[in-house]
Amino acid sequence: MSWLDTSIMTQRGVAKGAVRATHYLTEAKQGTYHYTMGPYSAPVLHVQPGDRIVVETRDAFEGKITSEQDRLADKLNVPFLNPQNGPIMVEGAEKGDTIAVYIESMVPRGANPRGTCCMIPNFGALTGTDYTATLNDPLPEKIRKIDLDEHGVYWSKRVTLPYKPHIGTLSCSPEIDSINSLTPDNHGGNMDLPDMGPDSITYLPVRSPGGRVFIGDAHACQGDGEVCGVAVEYATTTTIRVDLIKAWTIAWPRLENAEVIMAIGSARPLEDATRIAYKELVLWMAAEYGYDKWDAYMMLSQCGRVRLGNFVDPKYTVGAAITKKYLALAP
Amino acid sequence: MSWLDTSIMTQRGVAKGAVRATHYLTEAKQGTYHYTMGPYSAPVLHVQPGDRIVVETRDAFEGKITSEQDRLADKLNVPFLNPQNGPIMVEGAEKGDTIAVYIESMVPRGANPRGTCCMIPNFGALTGTDYTATLNDPLPEKIRKIDLDEHGVYWSKRVTLPYKPHIGTLSCSPEIDSINSLTPDNHGGNMDLPDMGPDSITYLPVRSPGGRVFIGDAHACQGDGEVCGVAVEYATTTTIRVDLIKAWTIAWPRLENAEVIMAIGSARPLEDATRIAYKELVLWMAAEYGYDKWDAYMMLSQCGRVRLGNFVDPKYTVGAAITKKYLALAP
Amino acid sequence: MSWLDTSIMTQRGVAKGAVRATHYLTEAKQGTYHYTMGPYSAPVLHVQPGDRIVVETRDAFEGKITSEQDRLADKLNVPFLNPQNGPIMVEGAEKGDTIAVYIESMVPRGANPRGTCCMIPNFGALTGTDYTATLNDPLPEKIRKIDLDEHGVYWSKRVTLPYKPHIGTLSCSPEIDSINSLTPDNHGGNMDLPDMGPDSITYLPVRSPGGRVFIGDAHACQGDGEVCGVAVEYATTTTIRVDLIKAWTIAWPRLENAEVIMAIGSARPLEDATRIAYKELVLWMAAEYGYDKWDAYMMLSQCGRVRLGNFVDPKYTVGAAITKKYLALAP
Amino acid sequence: MSWLDTSIMTQRGVAKGAVRATHYLTEAKQGTYHYTMGPYSAPVLHVQPGDRIVVETRDAFEGKITSEQDRLADKLNVPFLNPQNGPIMVEGAEKGDTIAVYIESMVPRGANPRGTCCMIPNFGALTGTDYTATLNDPLPEKIRKIDLDEHGVYWSKRVTLPYKPHIGTLSCSPEIDSINSLTPDNHGGNMDLPDMGPDSITYLPVRSPGGRVFIGDAHACQGDGEVCGVAVEYATTTTIRVDLIKAWTIAWPRLENAEVIMAIGSARPLEDATRIAYKELVLWMAAEYGYDKWDAYMMLSQCGRVRLGNFVDPKYTVGAAITKKYLALAP
Repeated sequence: MSWLDTSIMTQRGVAKGAVRATHYLTEAKQGTYHYTMGPYSAPVLHVQPGDRIVVETRDAFEGKITSEQDRLADKLNVPFLNPQNGPIMVEGAEKGDTIAVYIESMVPRGANPRGTCCMIPNFGALTGTDYTATLNDPLPEKIRKIDLDEHGVYWSKRVTLPYKPHIGTLSCSPEIDSINSLTPDNHGGNMDLPDMGPDSITYLPVRSPGGRVFIGDAHACQGDGEVCGVAVEYATTTTIRVDLIKAWTIAWPRLENAEVIMAIGSARPLEDATRIAYKELVLWMAAEYGYDKWDAYMMLSQCGRVRLGNFVDPKYTVGAAITKKYLALAP
Repeated sequence: MSWLDTSIMTQRGVAKGAVRATHYLTEAKQGTYHYTMGPYSAPVLHVQPGDRIVVETRDAFEGKITSEQDRLADKLNVPFLNPQNGPIMVEGAEKGDTIAVYIESMVPRGANPRGTCCMIPNFGALTGTDYTATLNDPLPEKIRKIDLDEHGVYWSKRVTLPYKPHIGTLSCSPEIDSINSLTPDNHGGNMDLPDMGPDSITYLPVRSPGGRVFIGDAHACQGDGEVCGVAVEYATTTTIRVDLIKAWTIAWPRLENAEVIMAIGSARPLEDATRIAYKELVLWMAAEYGYDKWDAYMMLSQCGRVRLGNFVDPKYTVGAAITKKYLALAP
Repeated sequence: MSWLDTSIMTQRGVAKGAVRATHYLTEAKQGTYHYTMGPYSAPVLHVQPGDRIVVETRDAFEGKITSEQDRLADKLNVPFLNPQNGPIMVEGAEKGDTIAVYIESMVPRGANPRGTCCMIPNFGALTGTDYTATLNDPLPEKIRKIDLDEHGVYWSKRVTLPYKPHIGTLSCSPEIDSINSLTPDNHGGNMDLPDMGPDSITYLPVRSPGGRVFIGDAHACQGDGEVCGVAVEYATTTTIRVDLIKAWTIAWPRLENAEVIMAIGSARPLEDATRIAYKELVLWMAAEYGYDKWDAYMMLSQCGRVRLGNFVDPKYTVGAAITKKYLALAP
Repeated sequence: MSWLDTSIMTQRGVAKGAVRATHYLTEAKQGTYHYTMGPYSAPVLHVQPGDRIVVETRDAFEGKITSEQDRLADKLNVPFLNPQNGPIMVEGAEKGDTIAVYIESMVPRGANPRGTCCMIPNFGALTGTDYTATLNDPLPEKIRKIDLDEHGVYWSKRVTLPYKPHIGTLSCSPEIDSINSLTPDNHGGNMDLPDMGPDSITYLPVRSPGGRVFIGDAHACQGDGEVCGVAVEYATTTTIRVDLIKAWTIAWPRLENAEVIMAIGSARPLEDATRIAYKELVLWMAAEYGYDKWDAYMMLSQCGRVRLGNFVDPKYTVGAAITKKYLALAP
């Protein structure tokens, strides 16, 4: 028996764990990719809870950076960055519900060197930026093209990093805003959370009819915080399964895998993102796992685990998690 | 001769200071007010540079709070707050241009008590909020209805505050995002800057055809920072004049009045908003007033003036200013 | 009658407004200046409430920067910066009391060019720093020597800035910490608040016997925020008068002048400094001016005034003020 | 062969891995514990590089909280919190050197319930605090007494957490400041980093003769961030070994264990702590492991690991780490 059988998705989802039709959201089917996530774009797909969707994601630079000699200014056209597939409409989803996205697999697409990393002037954690505005000269521009496959990310002649893929950007639509795909917030978005990979479930708050799921920005691997601002960006064939949990109203995205449940916050400054994540986790433990609120708070002070997603995007992302085995024993 | 004759708007605007047609953007003409500022809404008005527009703004609560006994949860429907007039299309405005908005006058509308202030749970600077997430109980809900006219804001039996109106929310549209009207950013938006009142010019970056000007959220008076989260909110008849400065590309909104020029930044944490404002001011002095960049930086360290707009919105707003008389003498 | 006669210092101080003995804290008398403020240094002076002290302050660089061609690395020896006079022991001061420091005058000392401004690598608001750590190259080093007298600060051939002196660093000792003189906190310290000039009273919390007053870091003028990190630093003869308010326990420094009362907070991020200042002001209005706490909070949202002291030091400083005329009318 | 044999401490330390004399720093020998870390206190012990020291640490509340019915206000006397053993003088240590502290073991002392956790009003991450000043009522005060031994922390009848001890507070003295033991900074201090447990080496910058090592604040376990502000605090017999690395000048503390090297930053806002940690790690890889600076920066974006120590103290602490196996392969 898989952990999935006892997951929140399976236990509370409309599909009750059943896997139904498979849809293919190819590049051709997608047509125009999106650079904002909102209620104003035309749906590309309508699915049922339990359906599987095979998505051809493009890399964050839309495949335009093909050589280490490219000049970024020639290739990138701000704000048209981080192209998203979607919106995918989930039958029956209404404001106040939650959509579950289980990631089955992420397979690289395209010819090697498939991976791209770069240093973008005035972007990243260790440089002045548009928001942390300084008068220093920008860091040099650098491009790194990287071979990768399902066995490894061949960073350099000597260093092979594990292939540990995840989805950088995943969301339902905000209710009225249309938010660029570089920014995470309480709808999800560009969270860059390494836990959001195969065999994980992300729970997203539904705020408009159909939920309007957007997905993109695959990373073949990423360090905590994505410190230079860019992971190993690549195009994938990503297979997800979606389900719908009716009347489960969550304020921020959440995540579940075999080991933990995690609440996710995105904000600046970084302590606010962390506060949100931990507060949501406390309230979750109190609402659904039988914990006294203060006991949950004090216990997380002893066993809570924090993942720094990004601290480079317009908002920073943090996940706060607790191991499921402690939850099972509570209170 | 008015300072306006030597303003940037007059000197560089298409209208060259001429005042042309007058338009009336009444409540009826506006029809549906907007809660996001973006490129997806239908224009309500097309104007020429130099045109005057008489705008009937609604208060931030759309007039729904009529009694100190109201319950906010019954009256407010998040995120449908802070209704905006617009979008107003300015003939000839294109990405890379700047729209100038001169505020001629702000006259109260409606019967007294016209003004509304309140304490909204989990909103304001001295409380845990959705972003600075805490487990404390919220502050009590309070509503204050306030008589006001063009002579004063009658805060209490004994305290009359000066009527010192300004526009809280003013912007062109972002290029692709549609941003809720509670949030300021580099497009303008909910800056809550007390300087943005009658006899001031706000310069807004144009990022989409026609500029798409939105305006609303009048305050009869406001302290620096708008600490409880709400000013004296009221409905007005606000008269503005717009002009278009071709090929003046600004990254953030700017302001000019008889005394100063000001650059405006909006971000979290608050030091980032302040950094943006001062950096933009340094670059402005260097680009257009003959200052060496480092000399501008050091001189502002001696004579720069900072206005805190809000530190309660999803992003905080700061203006950094220099007195024009020093500029005139430079370098 | 001066406003001083109705000041808190006069009304509640032990000296009741009387001016008593005058002490001279010359360079010779001071001997070794201090680079931390704490309970471990030997007193240089014992005074009574009501006594006047004429202090010879050194500039923040201890007079070592004499030429625009100096190299900072040759002249500055971190952390031995910002030399302080003191500690001055005030007879009768005990933990829980407050010491009032009225600044009578600040007169320049030394030969012109007396003033020094500079850009110190990795210091200032618009550069990466030791705390906001970036990998960018530092800004260039610059030194500016400036003529000044009591009539003006002769910044450049064409620009004369007003002589508007203030004390940058003023404090009692923390209870057990000894804090370097570059850092402000709840004991006072390097607040760099332009309001702290002649004809103002600063109220400092006493946390150790005698209070242990430190003073230094005079600025001939300074912009809000001290953006490049350095004001017009100069040596002075500063005359202060001290008084003691028994059993007035304040958590953070406060200030009073003819127009306003002000609460002062120092913290990072900048919103926390602002929160502290406004919270202290709300509590002060509630405790001593008859305001309901929530009414004070909402009213400051309409008429509170914020001064940004510095946003360059290890902690940033903000003052929040209310005009006395509104206080007089309350509630 | 242990990893210790190839550690920086062994390779570069004066003792070259030799274990020399053993000293006992008992409660009696310590006498008065310290609440600040600075150059003004009298040494309790002089040791040689390579010496072992068996330290009797007190819990952060100095053992005063003995019952869940205690009232914190009766027991705690701010700022006399978090008692420290030391200062321990290391022979030959001079400004510019680094002291290595290898933790051999941490054994609980005293009778059960030995462990203490509590919710202290206005302290912790999910509440308004003295710095993030709000007007909300404080959270309730709670005390939890916890049985623990070397096999587990018996949090509740059903939940046993692993005994995973670490030292919360460890430092050399700042050069001139004396910093309270609640605050971490570039000298070390109250970092609350779970990695700082048995079989780890902490590297501390020496800034005064002898280094003046302080140690205390043991935690039997702690979650990332120490969210409620308090871990499972307890008294220990902690055995450390110290060594001295001459002329290795580090700006911030560092850590090494069998798996990783880690740089540690402490600051507010939290992104600044993270920036410091990652910048120090980049510079360390460039200076000592043959990495090009930009390659290190981009590679950490793919494989850097972040540990959140605390986000409750006056400064927050973050460690940024890289697995040693990647270092070995560089560049």
